[in-house]
Amino acid sequence: MRKVFQAELHQVGEELIEISSLVTEAIEKANQAFTGADVELAQEVIAADARIDFLQNDLDERAIDILALQGPVASDLRMIVGSLRMSASLERMGDLARHVAQLARLRFPAKVIPASLTATFDELATLDIQISRQITELLESRELGLVTDIQSANARINELHRSVFGAISAPDWSETPSTTVDVTLASRYFERFGDHGVSVARKVSYLVTGQWQPESFTN
Amino acid sequence: MRKVFQAELHQVGEELIEISSLVTEAIEKANQAFTGADVELAQEVIAADARIDFLQNDLDERAIDILALQGPVASDLRMIVGSLRMSASLERMGDLARHVAQLARLRFPAKVIPASLTATFDELATLDIQISRQITELLESRELGLVTDIQSANARINELHRSVFGAISAPDWSETPSTTVDVTLASRYFERFGDHGVSVARKVSYLVTGQWQPESFTN
Repeated sequence: MRKVFQAELHQVGEELIEISSLVTEAIEKANQAFTGADVELAQEVIAADARIDFLQNDLDERAIDILALQGPVASDLRMIVGSLRMSASLERMGDLARHVAQLARLRFPAKVIPASLTATFDELATLDIQISRQITELLESRELGLVTDIQSANARINELHRSVFGAISAPDWSETPSTTVDVTLASRYFERFGDHGVSVARKVSYLVTGQWQPESFTN
Repeated sequence: MRKVFQAELHQVGEELIEISSLVTEAIEKANQAFTGADVELAQEVIAADARIDFLQNDLDERAIDILALQGPVASDLRMIVGSLRMSASLERMGDLARHVAQLARLRFPAKVIPASLTATFDELATLDIQISRQITELLESRELGLVTDIQSANARINELHRSVFGAISAPDWSETPSTTVDVTLASRYFERFGDHGVSVARKVSYLVTGQWQPESFTN
């Protein structure tokens, strides 16, 4: 019985890692579609999001079955409840990657981001991709040094996000209102992605240490 | 034992209602601060969000204790897991009300929204407030007719949200880029608020019927 239970817990952990890998793939491809105005790739990301949603539901049902049938306590219980919450954050990160891809599709064949902000958005995307990869690694290794890396990356994302608004408010901003909207939304999607990443990282940290780390940022 | 357990479940339900009431108060006041450029009221909403966060944590801990100590099954288990998820959505709605208040504070003494969009934003806010009130009512009464009302209100919100982008893209849009950013973000906050409201409503519906209603919208 105990062995079956451990196998089931392990399965939940594996599914979380699978979802996290799919989210990484989604944000990588979404960014390629976004920077390269690649409508087919955008379409692929949009379609693939259904798989992430499916896996999230599957994981959640599995977790609830474990709660019902095994009545886990202490750290096992924390692990199950934590998984339910992490899956929700990961699913939302998948949605945000889809939103980025949808912007690419909407503006095709034009690019969403004006040349003056390309470098900023490249860095935003690179940081989101880094966070997403590190979450997978963190879920696999439980190496808590990664949590700090993820938080630092997110702090930099917040700076970049603010700098985007600075650029838009500057006197030399000469883009159309539509572009201003797209830039605002895209920046917000990348920024939210990082926040959800931090939220997953903090949950892993909580599972490992049993200590709830206070939030060091507001959003 | 059974009696204690029922009292604890009831307590979780009550706390959910309390959070929902605070969220309603937050979105009502945030909107007043937002439309009236009332910086003190904005400040009040921003400060009050900590109470919502505290109550969410408290509810979550209580729910996890019930899972650990009572090992609920079937509909009781569903109710506990559902509460954890609803509290997360309500907490997020509180954050969004805070974001609206933060925009009001940022632009004070100016108003955030230009006169041409006042009516649209009034309607957005009215619908968000309606949704928030109806969620409290739904949590109290489990009257599923309210779910349909909430979904209809959200469909209208999505229309209005799209119309904001239409207004910004129109040739006669002559606002500053900063205003364009504020309008974009504010519209997004009101729109996300409605989505989270639908998400809570669908969870209540699931708890009552045991049937998971497929999502009828994408965001």
